[in-house]
Amino acid sequence: MFHLALVVCSIWVKILTFLNIKQLEYAALARRATQIQKELSQGVRKPYKELTDVCWGDPHSLGVKPLTFVRQVLAACVYPELMSSHKLPLDVRQRAQWLLGKCEGGSIGSYPASAGIPEIIQRMSKSIARRDGGVPCNPENVFISPGSQWSLTVTSLLLTSLNDEAPLRTGILIPVPCHVTTITSITSLGAAVVPYFLSEEHGWALQVEELQRALESAKGGCNPIALYVINPGNPAGYVQSRKSIQEVIRFASEKRLVLLADEVYQDCVYGKNSEFVSYKKVLAEMGPPFSDTVELASFHSVSKGFMGECGLRGGYVELVNLDPNVVNYISNLNYDTTSVLAQFALDLMMNPPRPGDPSYPLYNQVRNAVNAICLPGLSCQPVEGGAFVFPRVFLPPRAIQKAKEEGMQPDTFYCMRLLEETGVLITPGCEYRQKEGTYHIRYNIKNKLNSILLPH
Amino acid sequence: MFHLALVVCSIWVKILTFLNIKQLEYAALARRATQIQKELSQGVRKPYKELTDVCWGDPHSLGVKPLTFVRQVLAACVYPELMSSHKLPLDVRQRAQWLLGKCEGGSIGSYPASAGIPEIIQRMSKSIARRDGGVPCNPENVFISPGSQWSLTVTSLLLTSLNDEAPLRTGILIPVPCHVTTITSITSLGAAVVPYFLSEEHGWALQVEELQRALESAKGGCNPIALYVINPGNPAGYVQSRKSIQEVIRFASEKRLVLLADEVYQDCVYGKNSEFVSYKKVLAEMGPPFSDTVELASFHSVSKGFMGECGLRGGYVELVNLDPNVVNYISNLNYDTTSVLAQFALDLMMNPPRPGDPSYPLYNQVRNAVNAICLPGLSCQPVEGGAFVFPRVFLPPRAIQKAKEEGMQPDTFYCMRLLEETGVLITPGCEYRQKEGTYHIRYNIKNKLNSILLPH
Ligand SMILES: Cc1ncc(COP(=O)(O)O)c(C=O)c1O
Ligand SMILES: Cc1ncc(COP(=O)(O)O)c(C=O)c1O
Repeated sequence: MFHLALVVCSIWVKILTFLNIKQLEYAALARRATQIQKELSQGVRKPYKELTDVCWGDPHSLGVKPLTFVRQVLAACVYPELMSSHKLPLDVRQRAQWLLGKCEGGSIGSYPASAGIPEIIQRMSKSIARRDGGVPCNPENVFISPGSQWSLTVTSLLLTSLNDEAPLRTGILIPVPCHVTTITSITSLGAAVVPYFLSEEHGWALQVEELQRALESAKGGCNPIALYVINPGNPAGYVQSRKSIQEVIRFASEKRLVLLADEVYQDCVYGKNSEFVSYKKVLAEMGPPFSDTVELASFHSVSKGFMGECGLRGGYVELVNLDPNVVNYISNLNYDTTSVLAQFALDLMMNPPRPGDPSYPLYNQVRNAVNAICLPGLSCQPVEGGAFVFPRVFLPPRAIQKAKEEGMQPDTFYCMRLLEETGVLITPGCEYRQKEGTYHIRYNIKNKLNSILLPH
Repeated sequence: MFHLALVVCSIWVKILTFLNIKQLEYAALARRATQIQKELSQGVRKPYKELTDVCWGDPHSLGVKPLTFVRQVLAACVYPELMSSHKLPLDVRQRAQWLLGKCEGGSIGSYPASAGIPEIIQRMSKSIARRDGGVPCNPENVFISPGSQWSLTVTSLLLTSLNDEAPLRTGILIPVPCHVTTITSITSLGAAVVPYFLSEEHGWALQVEELQRALESAKGGCNPIALYVINPGNPAGYVQSRKSIQEVIRFASEKRLVLLADEVYQDCVYGKNSEFVSYKKVLAEMGPPFSDTVELASFHSVSKGFMGECGLRGGYVELVNLDPNVVNYISNLNYDTTSVLAQFALDLMMNPPRPGDPSYPLYNQVRNAVNAICLPGLSCQPVEGGAFVFPRVFLPPRAIQKAKEEGMQPDTFYCMRLLEETGVLITPGCEYRQKEGTYHIRYNIKNKLNSILLPH
């Protein structure tokens, strides 16, 4: 028994280690950015007046306005006295009333049921079914948590532990480039990251031959049990077509891999010919044997989309065809961690105002504004979805040499120069892994700085 | 490595098991209560018109009003447009502005730093030092989380794992009666519960001789490493004196036990001669060798006190003299789980309005009203703090016999009868453990039903 506990401890030691080393390259940049901020506040003259940080998928920190409807409903729930004035639109007041009615004593201050407020989870599952054109969604398969990253960590943890009989350690296939936190949580669980490269030449497409190659490469080293996909992508903003998803599902089925579909950017699709189709929907369309055997976990979050409420800490995972053991464990992992307001936010995200509602016109306008982007001919693959661009930068050999001398990766060197000269903080591609010899930068496109950021 | 993961899994299996069996006695009552509610809504005639649930420490679910100051500040943070009107008091607007200033982009929608917003943790630590009359509090020892129960589980988990070399399994001393969730989390970690009985005859006092007896009783069975105390108590509403705390600290020092001090009811003290003194303060007053060796973890939460914001999910633990390994691990356990609003609520709890502030008069009035209680001569030990009474019920042998026939504990039987006859739902003492042959009930005193509840 104590050994069990020791083990938990060692897992956390690993997390500790990984969190600390996670962003060494970025850390140097962030340190310098802090210094620059200080210098600016002390009146040091620079070619810019303020520092602009476009590294993170954190729209509000970049000054993107939160959705009025969302904030009004939450404020009314926090302070119901607001509802007595008619300043708030009728649908806001009605929604707040409905949500509060699901809390004991009508207050967000009461403990919610350990697994979440049942009526909210039911509505979430109805909304998932609507998104997927009627493919049913069982509320018992929907698990809320303080963020999708937490759901992903917990799901991977349980999958890893079910693999304990295997002679090799668990492997999980991960795209390159990939959202950093995912890599750190997976490695921290002791699982091996099996990288597959997205094809920059094909708009960062996910290619099955590459999955095949990655799987082969893992042979003997680890036992791959799951395939992690991000659609729409981060940091590369591609959106998978239905056909591409079908291919991935067939591959997962053939190789008996659990599909971990990170679909947190599902509401951020703006490519002219792109459309978000969920893995769940495509799976259902494919029919048996796929639809009743392929194991799928789909993640979503209030942190992303045009809602962007990262600070509320709310997300969920929907599990399809998963081992009942995993489902059972997960249902007990999240007890009492997700705040009532995060649960309300999930409800608002999944049941936004509809045409005809008083809040609809403003909601729709803000949503369109947040999703509208202007990319002035950036030399980068077209961005179809997500919140980031990941353009390639071609650096002269002298720059690469100089970077080496300063003990930096060439793209970190590029970012450091950009920071010094323009006050704009972006992230180097090496943070997300990239093909050897290629260099990239990543930044959030929800800003007005694209002309500065064009690699020059 | 896979074995490590397996182990995490088995821990969760245990949690699963314990959560499911946790409240068998209470479950029967809750089921019947749901039926009664249904019957009432269908028009079935009963001697009461509605069901009243006074089981839980959830003031808002009992209709206790939230603190206006707290809700106004949070609403203003959620929807800053509210600040442009002068309807909100100046100190509310100022506080909201200060809090939002600590968020990237001035929005609660941004990711907070993984370990929490540094300025808030600094202010929390200053407030702890103030509470303790100047005993310093290092912000690096204060760890926020989604609730104190989470902090307690995580701390116990780490302590348990540090005991891995010992030949016997870890034991933790736990008061009887005790808050249920604590027992389930400790047992779920694979640690043994070593019960010590609070002395009902002495106002549910904690007696060192009893700690001694409990420790002796554990010999050979497990290796006790920690002592859990709840002060002020739950379900028994006693408040420890400084002298009693000194004795406990001396005992912990002598036996090398880590002190786990659950102080979530620190703001709920209303006995005429009672005063809350923190373990941390007494420890500091005692000086070396105690003050620099006794390991102490103190828990607090926005769920309790007169704030009662259980749904926000915010709490913290302060660690004193703890093994640096434990401190290190804990600092990485909570990453990204505590919402920004829960962090704001911690700030508001620990820095309430002060005399002279516009919000002070109302704040003070509501606080007094929440803490004012009327106990009409209940045949129970005087209640000095906490939110509950735990009166003893003397049941006639026929009732005990009848209970046996129906397969219930005698106090569950009592509660079931009370529910049928009055529509009032309370919890049987067997849920909290009690001395054999004694029976108790527990209910929240923040309600107006004490006359019904008087055991008859
Ligand atoms: C692909 C992806 N998944 C998950 C997350 C984390 O989301 P959450 O805030 O729900 O934990 C992010 C955040 O940037 C992300 O980019
Ligand atoms: C003694 C005690 N500690 C802790 C808690 C749990 O508090 P939290 O909501 O912070 O997890 C409770 C809740 O009833 C309690 O009574």
